[in-house]
Amino acid sequence: MTSITPTDQTKIRRVPGNAVYDRNVINAILDEALICHVGFVDHGQPFVIPTIPVRIKDRLYIHGSRASRMLRCAIGQAPLCITVTLLDGIVLARSAYHHSMNYRSVVILARGDEVTDPEMRLTVFKALTENIIPGRWDDLRPPNENENAVTMIASFPINEASAKIRTGPPNDEENDFALPYWAGVIPLSLKAGSPQPDPKLPDATAIPDYVSNYQR
Amino acid sequence: MTSITPTDQTKIRRVPGNAVYDRNVINAILDEALICHVGFVDHGQPFVIPTIPVRIKDRLYIHGSRASRMLRCAIGQAPLCITVTLLDGIVLARSAYHHSMNYRSVVILARGDEVTDPEMRLTVFKALTENIIPGRWDDLRPPNENENAVTMIASFPINEASAKIRTGPPNDEENDFALPYWAGVIPLSLKAGSPQPDPKLPDATAIPDYVSNYQR
Repeated sequence: MTSITPTDQTKIRRVPGNAVYDRNVINAILDEALICHVGFVDHGQPFVIPTIPVRIKDRLYIHGSRASRMLRCAIGQAPLCITVTLLDGIVLARSAYHHSMNYRSVVILARGDEVTDPEMRLTVFKALTENIIPGRWDDLRPPNENENAVTMIASFPINEASAKIRTGPPNDEENDFALPYWAGVIPLSLKAGSPQPDPKLPDATAIPDYVSNYQR
Repeated sequence: MTSITPTDQTKIRRVPGNAVYDRNVINAILDEALICHVGFVDHGQPFVIPTIPVRIKDRLYIHGSRASRMLRCAIGQAPLCITVTLLDGIVLARSAYHHSMNYRSVVILARGDEVTDPEMRLTVFKALTENIIPGRWDDLRPPNENENAVTMIASFPINEASAKIRTGPPNDEENDFALPYWAGVIPLSLKAGSPQPDPKLPDATAIPDYVSNYQR
């Protein structure tokens, strides 16, 4: 087990039994997420913006327009927070108080760097696509010079990070077990529906297997 | 249409065609969300923490332990950002560059107040539960005095807010339409699985209709 040492800022104090600092667990949560929420501060005002993350080794990458305030803040060595949350279920307890969610979340505190190396940029673009839909990178037009030029990539070390995971049935009070209310978990998961072809596709265009068999 | 006037801080500059300031649209997104991400700043470090939101009229409410740093920051009149994101699909374009997500998000900038009025607190507790699973509030034990005392509720005005929505097929370049790649959308949605009864439930306990028929 490769563990990340919790710092004063990432040590989980609320329900510490749900805290995980194992890098493999953190990585698995990051890799499953289709979006993260990036927190940054601009003139004292925090902003939280959703965007697509991808992890490569021990770093997390986000990308966007060079004109984006988020990206500009992200590469400016200011402290950021990037959070990923996967919702796994609704926890119905006998008491209102013990109602909860099953979830897996990761909080990363980091300062970002811009990725400028052309080879690394291409690696990130490919990973962003392949992490969402494996097989796609070989079935698209790669970024051209102009698209590449207007896109900024920010990179963050995953060193100051923690995961928080809740699983299993409700934690009701002993005194409440005799109450007549149903208790348990309604599982939740992100499901893919039937692919919707672009109306502008030629009629004969077959749906590739990596699309028709797509599952989260 | 009741519109929220965008401020310098909530006016959407990136892809402004996707911006929505209609209060009904913003409310519908907030009401569908099971979680929000709360951004706050503590000693210069932004944090982004997932929690359960509920909207009542023109305010958004979150709750948690009195010991929670997030709640303490939330009621301290410091500037916060609360963001909700609903993921609706993966947009596969002919070019890597135009790959995207279909989503509906809301960003609220606000300063929080603590909710102390006992009647309003009960209203919020009930709304939190009923917004997630309608019918549940009449089938549970309400908070007792101690549970009530240790729980803090923060309330935020929804006045400085904006929604951003992307729907529909990819926006490929004209030049790319002739490329042989499949393009379209893979819809995504949060689905409920079969309810998992708490192992501690008496065997005879029936699953209530509002649980067995649960859908997002």
